[in-house]
Amino acid sequence: MKYIDGGVCAATGFTANGIHCGIRKNKSKLDFALIVSEKVASVACVYTKNLVKGAPILVTQENVKNGYAQAVICNSGNANTCNANGVEIAQGMCELVERETGIKKEDVVVASTGVIGQPLSLEPMDKGINELVKGLGKKSSEANLAIMTTDTVEKTVAVEFELDGKVCKIGGIAKGSGMIHPNMATMLCFITTDASITPDMLKKALAEDVKSSYNMMSVDGDTSTNDTVAVLANGMAGNKTIESEGEDYKVFQKALSMVNQGLARSIAKDGEGATKLLISNVEGAKDLETARIVAKSIITSSLFKAAMFGADANWGRVLCAIGYSGADVDVNKIDVSFKSCAGEILVCRDGSGVDFDEAIAKTILSEKEIDVNVNLNDGEGKATAWGCDLTYEYVRINGDYRT
Amino acid sequence: MKYIDGGVCAATGFTANGIHCGIRKNKSKLDFALIVSEKVASVACVYTKNLVKGAPILVTQENVKNGYAQAVICNSGNANTCNANGVEIAQGMCELVERETGIKKEDVVVASTGVIGQPLSLEPMDKGINELVKGLGKKSSEANLAIMTTDTVEKTVAVEFELDGKVCKIGGIAKGSGMIHPNMATMLCFITTDASITPDMLKKALAEDVKSSYNMMSVDGDTSTNDTVAVLANGMAGNKTIESEGEDYKVFQKALSMVNQGLARSIAKDGEGATKLLISNVEGAKDLETARIVAKSIITSSLFKAAMFGADANWGRVLCAIGYSGADVDVNKIDVSFKSCAGEILVCRDGSGVDFDEAIAKTILSEKEIDVNVNLNDGEGKATAWGCDLTYEYVRINGDYRT
Repeated sequence: MKYIDGGVCAATGFTANGIHCGIRKNKSKLDFALIVSEKVASVACVYTKNLVKGAPILVTQENVKNGYAQAVICNSGNANTCNANGVEIAQGMCELVERETGIKKEDVVVASTGVIGQPLSLEPMDKGINELVKGLGKKSSEANLAIMTTDTVEKTVAVEFELDGKVCKIGGIAKGSGMIHPNMATMLCFITTDASITPDMLKKALAEDVKSSYNMMSVDGDTSTNDTVAVLANGMAGNKTIESEGEDYKVFQKALSMVNQGLARSIAKDGEGATKLLISNVEGAKDLETARIVAKSIITSSLFKAAMFGADANWGRVLCAIGYSGADVDVNKIDVSFKSCAGEILVCRDGSGVDFDEAIAKTILSEKEIDVNVNLNDGEGKATAWGCDLTYEYVRINGDYRT
Repeated sequence: MKYIDGGVCAATGFTANGIHCGIRKNKSKLDFALIVSEKVASVACVYTKNLVKGAPILVTQENVKNGYAQAVICNSGNANTCNANGVEIAQGMCELVERETGIKKEDVVVASTGVIGQPLSLEPMDKGINELVKGLGKKSSEANLAIMTTDTVEKTVAVEFELDGKVCKIGGIAKGSGMIHPNMATMLCFITTDASITPDMLKKALAEDVKSSYNMMSVDGDTSTNDTVAVLANGMAGNKTIESEGEDYKVFQKALSMVNQGLARSIAKDGEGATKLLISNVEGAKDLETARIVAKSIITSSLFKAAMFGADANWGRVLCAIGYSGADVDVNKIDVSFKSCAGEILVCRDGSGVDFDEAIAKTILSEKEIDVNVNLNDGEGKATAWGCDLTYEYVRINGDYRT
């Protein structure tokens, strides 16, 4: 299994494109993306659990009910959420795809990201769809750019693997800042693979994997109204279709996990205003669930995030976040160390502080990727969560997003 | 029932003082506080639910078990938490009170606030206790100053009321930024009253009231390790002792509620880095619990808080926070308006945006106290929560607290 280039177009039979159609005022910012499969593909999606759901999600849920899809259409600049005619607009977007490509509108996954509660007009998309379709090619990057909002870098991962003697590929693009994250920085992940797998097994693989990828990532504790992860599997690699949980399923799941964790990590690292990627590794938990709760609580703490921004080895905030996480832990057994490419330093043993060199800690915490390693010394459960620091820039971006 | 001056010394028989004893380096910053009752008083306390608890809380829990106390001793500058000898130090603080005042060490409520995980020495307190006790008087303000950390203003409320023909008083001082709040900005509230009430009824009144006061306040979603609310009732007003839930209990509860809600509001307003007090008023909920969850979720949202900092009427963030709150609401029935002393403006009706004048909204949101009024149109439940905006200053304070 190895990482490859190509993003959402790495897999055989998938093309993509991204253009500026006019939803955003800034003409240099792409705002309309399309991903197309040559053949109808198995599809699996997971969505935000927010009760306030974007209209595109309602339409997508309906469209993927039968387990198949062939295209993904997405705009940025407007979330199409809390609009009276939102569903109509989202359906209209699917109809535009059908008109220009012949792909059935019921086989389209539709998504939107941007401001909530502002009417979205079909007009610019109606005018732009022809250019978008004509330009389809191995353009993962254009599609990626077109779904970005406050993102500062593209997020893409692709992996090559083998099933049944056939070379398969899986790759994806993503935007946003977390499953639990800003409402305008909606997380969208579109993943394509040429592996052959039934809709049911694809759904199962995705549902299982989000627990240790997207759900273990946080930027600011807010859950978007529009989060969507969609995986399309068109079977063009020619492997024997995965229909049950055998060896092939395990290989596929591993590949999917590499893509998802890679994208999750990229999203956290590019969290709004972030200067640092924070990785919380918890081991010694009494079970997996405890490890997950503790890991997530640490990288969600505003105080810990602000301390990391300041390269301040304030480990008390790690203990504090573990203490209020709701997990069942013995606080007198907790060890904590900070680690980066500059080294590792133990700051807390058995729940109490140890003497450490503040200058060395500062050097370690001044790097761009910080691991906070926690051992609960209470069992075998382990989990990793990804987050980012809390910065002035986060406040600036979110204090004045709409204007 | 009316507001009066005097804070924690408003009630008959209570004196207080605050001095600089040397725990903090800055000599102009008081760091050692004492509150004393002439007579042994009924006592009730509530503490943080964080599993990591400050050592003073463990000692206080033991000391108030019998329902009585006579003094409160508190230092700032060091939380005495996650220290191997923490309990010994906290007991030592109670012994200092006994040595200088004759009050039994088992009748002392002890609290600490400041950095976690740094050893606290008894020495400066041992040297300072004599000066602290000698200076006892109607010095609520000195005691208040001595318990502050990142607080920028004193927080005090006192109320006069009548029970059984006798004039009673209840008053308190507080510091910090929330029950759910920074680990270094531990919330401490010390309340004194000369009303006569049994320990059991005092405990009941406090436990009930924190649900609609301190527990409805948030600054940053972090729950401190040292939060403590302590109420001392010395009975010196001479009213017939409240022993059950009759009319007198109701009057007392009302007075306690005025003090607690006033202090909660002050704490939220002085949240770290805050420029604005945010008040979330939810009505039309199907029950009280739903109203509380929704009100709290709104003022806890980092995105909403940042939008308010920028005076940005981004009501989508209010809907988003309601949607992920976990409360059972019909998102298509929600009305939202923003209000301040500059006016009120409706921004969302039935879950969708309405046209509104952005300039007027900006003017309303540029004030120092903002109400976000939400009607769920689904019942009779109502609740209020207090929070503050998320600012550059919050990041600055917390990015570099220890240095």
